[in-house]
Amino acid sequence: MATSLNNTGHDMKIIVIGATGILGQAVVTHLHALGHDVITASRNSGMEQVDIRDDASVRALFVRTGKVDAIVSTAGVVSFEPLRSMTSAQFMLGLQDKFLGQVRLALIGQDFVHEGGSITLTTGITGHEPIAAGANATAVNVGIEGFVQAAALELPNRIRINAVSPNVLTEALPDFAPYFPGFGSVSGAEAARAYQRSIEGIQTGRVFKVGY
Amino acid sequence: MATSLNNTGHDMKIIVIGATGILGQAVVTHLHALGHDVITASRNSGMEQVDIRDDASVRALFVRTGKVDAIVSTAGVVSFEPLRSMTSAQFMLGLQDKFLGQVRLALIGQDFVHEGGSITLTTGITGHEPIAAGANATAVNVGIEGFVQAAALELPNRIRINAVSPNVLTEALPDFAPYFPGFGSVSGAEAARAYQRSIEGIQTGRVFKVGY
Repeated sequence: MATSLNNTGHDMKIIVIGATGILGQAVVTHLHALGHDVITASRNSGMEQVDIRDDASVRALFVRTGKVDAIVSTAGVVSFEPLRSMTSAQFMLGLQDKFLGQVRLALIGQDFVHEGGSITLTTGITGHEPIAAGANATAVNVGIEGFVQAAALELPNRIRINAVSPNVLTEALPDFAPYFPGFGSVSGAEAARAYQRSIEGIQTGRVFKVGY
Repeated sequence: MATSLNNTGHDMKIIVIGATGILGQAVVTHLHALGHDVITASRNSGMEQVDIRDDASVRALFVRTGKVDAIVSTAGVVSFEPLRSMTSAQFMLGLQDKFLGQVRLALIGQDFVHEGGSITLTTGITGHEPIAAGANATAVNVGIEGFVQAAALELPNRIRINAVSPNVLTEALPDFAPYFPGFGSVSGAEAARAYQRSIEGIQTGRVFKVGY
């Protein structure tokens, strides 16, 4: 049964990369509840395994899955390190992983998305609200958002691309609360709705801030 | 003779990395005219040679120059490639060179800037106005601006950091005009004044847009 009014007109085939993380699990649960056909992928578990740092691994993933209606990434790590002691190698970690890893999913994935389908990447509130030890996170998140805004203008076949930028997840507060004084938080379930907006809606080149 | 009202109160010792490019030359000319003591650096010429992709090369540069009042970077390249055919390796070029290269100058350079001194990096109008084949440029430029905004909050010793984001340079139009339809342009001399604002002013964490 169709769960959306957009131009695909049928339940969608959606691949979620980073599906076993806190956010990824919440997105998968929400997409399942909407009736979509979800392929879960992550580095070491899920239905499919993929290393987003490796072109061949990403291409092989999409060859295995075939064309999809939507690619969702909730994958990628950055370095948290005080600027005073941060090395360029630590800074590079976020560039190689969360930044280029997600860009790679879009660059390679554009050939595996049906016409009018979508690509949704994940950034985070630190892109707009710097936190202590968070210079790598801020730079990576806004860099990805810049990519999204530019790529939206060049993607073929009416493929759309957006980013979701959640506040710190409520479920992650036990580990991260000290980094986010006074920030509040957003549940994974609430953040997941922003991915639905990107997937089932018509917008492109957008950054959906959620829980700010 | 003092040329500014800021807290250094004397002609400044300033290193300009990327000093032999079109923009770098204009910045050096302007800083000389203001009476500053300018050390020029670039990959293959200038008073000092440096490879901004290499930690050891950057550290050796600052060890040779000793502490400075200001670090200015007009260095770094990105890939211009249609999104449809862009590879992750092409995208990585801009991350390694213009993005991490300039971040490296700040991370290592923070130990070589006098109290109250400044670091000024260079981005560009494509960060805010995407152009064809410019997704790497957009992503890199706004990523650098995110770094600047976060780093300004963590730098020690009242060291300031800003970015200058010029429109396409008038002097570069013979090569780049087709990429910037209707954009106008800014002369290197006019763009150079934004570097003066960053160096002699009091602001930090700012992006100085010039010629937009």
